Amino acid sequence: MTATSTTVDLKNRLERARQTAGAAGIDALLITPSQDLRYLVGYDAKALERLTCLALPVSGGGPVLVVPRLERGAAEASGVEQLDVEIVTWEETEDPYALVAKLLPSGVRRIGLDNHMWAEKVLGFAAALPGVTQALANEVLTELRMRKSPFEVAALREAGAAIDRVHARVPDWLKVGRTEREVGADIAAAILEEGHVQVDFTIVGSGPNSASPHHEVSDRVIQRGEPVVVDIGGTTAAGYCSDSTRTYVMGSAPAAFVEYYEVLRQAQIAACEHVRPGVSAESVDAAARSVIASAGFGDQFIHRTGHGIGMESHEDPYIVAGNTLPLEPGMAFSVEPGIYFAGEHGARIEDILVVTESGGERVNLRPRELTVLDG
Amino acid sequence: MTATSTTVDLKNRLERARQTAGAAGIDALLITPSQDLRYLVGYDAKALERLTCLALPVSGGGPVLVVPRLERGAAEASGVEQLDVEIVTWEETEDPYALVAKLLPSGVRRIGLDNHMWAEKVLGFAAALPGVTQALANEVLTELRMRKSPFEVAALREAGAAIDRVHARVPDWLKVGRTEREVGADIAAAILEEGHVQVDFTIVGSGPNSASPHHEVSDRVIQRGEPVVVDIGGTTAAGYCSDSTRTYVMGSAPAAFVEYYEVLRQAQIAACEHVRPGVSAESVDAAARSVIASAGFGDQFIHRTGHGIGMESHEDPYIVAGNTLPLEPGMAFSVEPGIYFAGEHGARIEDILVVTESGGERVNLRPRELTVLDG
Repeated sequence: MTATSTTVDLKNRLERARQTAGAAGIDALLITPSQDLRYLVGYDAKALERLTCLALPVSGGGPVLVVPRLERGAAEASGVEQLDVEIVTWEETEDPYALVAKLLPSGVRRIGLDNHMWAEKVLGFAAALPGVTQALANEVLTELRMRKSPFEVAALREAGAAIDRVHARVPDWLKVGRTEREVGADIAAAILEEGHVQVDFTIVGSGPNSASPHHEVSDRVIQRGEPVVVDIGGTTAAGYCSDSTRTYVMGSAPAAFVEYYEVLRQAQIAACEHVRPGVSAESVDAAARSVIASAGFGDQFIHRTGHGIGMESHEDPYIVAGNTLPLEPGMAFSVEPGIYFAGEHGARIEDILVVTESGGERVNLRPRELTVLDG
Repeated sequence: MTATSTTVDLKNRLERARQTAGAAGIDALLITPSQDLRYLVGYDAKALERLTCLALPVSGGGPVLVVPRLERGAAEASGVEQLDVEIVTWEETEDPYALVAKLLPSGVRRIGLDNHMWAEKVLGFAAALPGVTQALANEVLTELRMRKSPFEVAALREAGAAIDRVHARVPDWLKVGRTEREVGADIAAAILEEGHVQVDFTIVGSGPNSASPHHEVSDRVIQRGEPVVVDIGGTTAAGYCSDSTRTYVMGSAPAAFVEYYEVLRQAQIAACEHVRPGVSAESVDAAARSVIASAGFGDQFIHRTGHGIGMESHEDPYIVAGNTLPLEPGMAFSVEPGIYFAGEHGARIEDILVVTESGGERVNLRPRELTVLDG
């Protein structure tokens, strides 16, 4: 089995997925390699051109994992058979879509496709299952995955502590005269040293690049007096993601920057303190946005406040205007407002929070005050 | 622009993609972040939940890159505007599928979707473009991407030399008493040290795991007398992939293994020597398979002989029975026969070849004889 879960947990997930699918009017789920597959059956397979697919009918048959013959060994080793998932293999010259279609119970009319299934597979199933309506599995799996179990919350806490240890070491590498890429390489190595098995992203945005939220790294040399946004994350052995941003400044920052950074910090605190069961996702966004807008920086906060996190860096729930979902205990997401002056500089502060019975627990605990490094 | 190509190269690619799409009866291509996007316009973007999409109509309008507003900076930095690709942004609360639909010329009836586009995007476009038939972009892009330019061949040669340098160092780490995972971690570090920017896979299959072609690594301790299959690859800064397998043995191997390893080596050589323009992809598979089958091991060669390689580890052309494609200069693929006795041991030898005017050029040049390491 995987390190993330026990057989009993996984059996529960399969059963809840069936029930939720049935209630959503979906007759079967088709799940290709993805975090959804790992979540449901613990099989951590890569998405490749050869079809691997879990077929999970709501009724009329048990779950079947269809895999290329040469991956039977890996599928067996993942322990899916302990969940009463039957492994069926296909040969190199066979049509695997027709095989899946044949294995589904008759009467399947609406299928839920894994959200990240590749288009070539989507069209393969459309051809093999004429007359069957294609919907998305996240109608079902989002409901399950966005409510984290205590086991999963512990895994997110561990991931949060791991990335906090990396941020604590950032001053060792972030120096005037080095390039963003050099700093990023040191951070990437530390992400692996500090308890992750995979580096998901290392954003080091200096000077004007700090105003570009999805900038990664470049050969730009970091200058005295510049803000540097460091937004980093990885995945732990248990399969859970970390993601935290701090903004550093190389010596003394422009006065305008120092002013809006404090607004940003108050906005991030306000949003974190707003989190509790029953409030809507969009109200958390509004809590951050109203502080920033009141200070006159509304046009400079150009993205949503946050995204859910778990086995993926970005998943439901999204903390954005229009998302009226009421928060529940076990939901986990980022709170990461930013203020950006394109071409000049910008700042962002990001922590991951888990909704508790009475509020929100931050799993990232590095200080949120502006960190001034030797210029 | 990217390190992989010049603006002129990329403009040619866009123009050839238009022409090939037109000839294939496709009115527009919709390309989401993937190696296809990087190949066409040099924009190396991540696949994320927010839609980024290149819309390339065959006629009636120019190419448009639709991106979330917060990624405008990254899109501009990639230099796509030098290719006369217009960047159009969408706001956090807008429907990006409707925006793409509005930007397409009227009269679009059949669209080619990026093969790796996520199902959620496929269904998003199905809803936004009712009555428009969805096909796959690889009908078009495979034709372009599988014929490598001299620039691309040079990039594959560089990737091949990089992974050869890693194999040359394998004896430093592969020792009796270490686990596959420990050896794999050393190899992964060396993949980065020796000229790659990304580790794509590190398979270290010892003893019975050597008989499982897609085994990765495990905590199994390597024993004296065991074969170990080491199949490794990464991606270079230019965006091209390496992939090479050698089988090592820890001291003296079982006599049966030594016997079939020599059959395998002859099969791999026969397939490599068969490669030249005009022969079919499947005939290369047959060249390897016939040597193995004649020696009585046909049932133990359980996968195709190879896969194309370029900006992806696995792409067209596939070297498999049923693929009658005639080889042309510039096509690049693996030749990697294997012989596997499930539960006991197995072996594989893999080189990447590029078709030349008169034959095949191996870009991997490590010795193919069985490498015996200190037991």
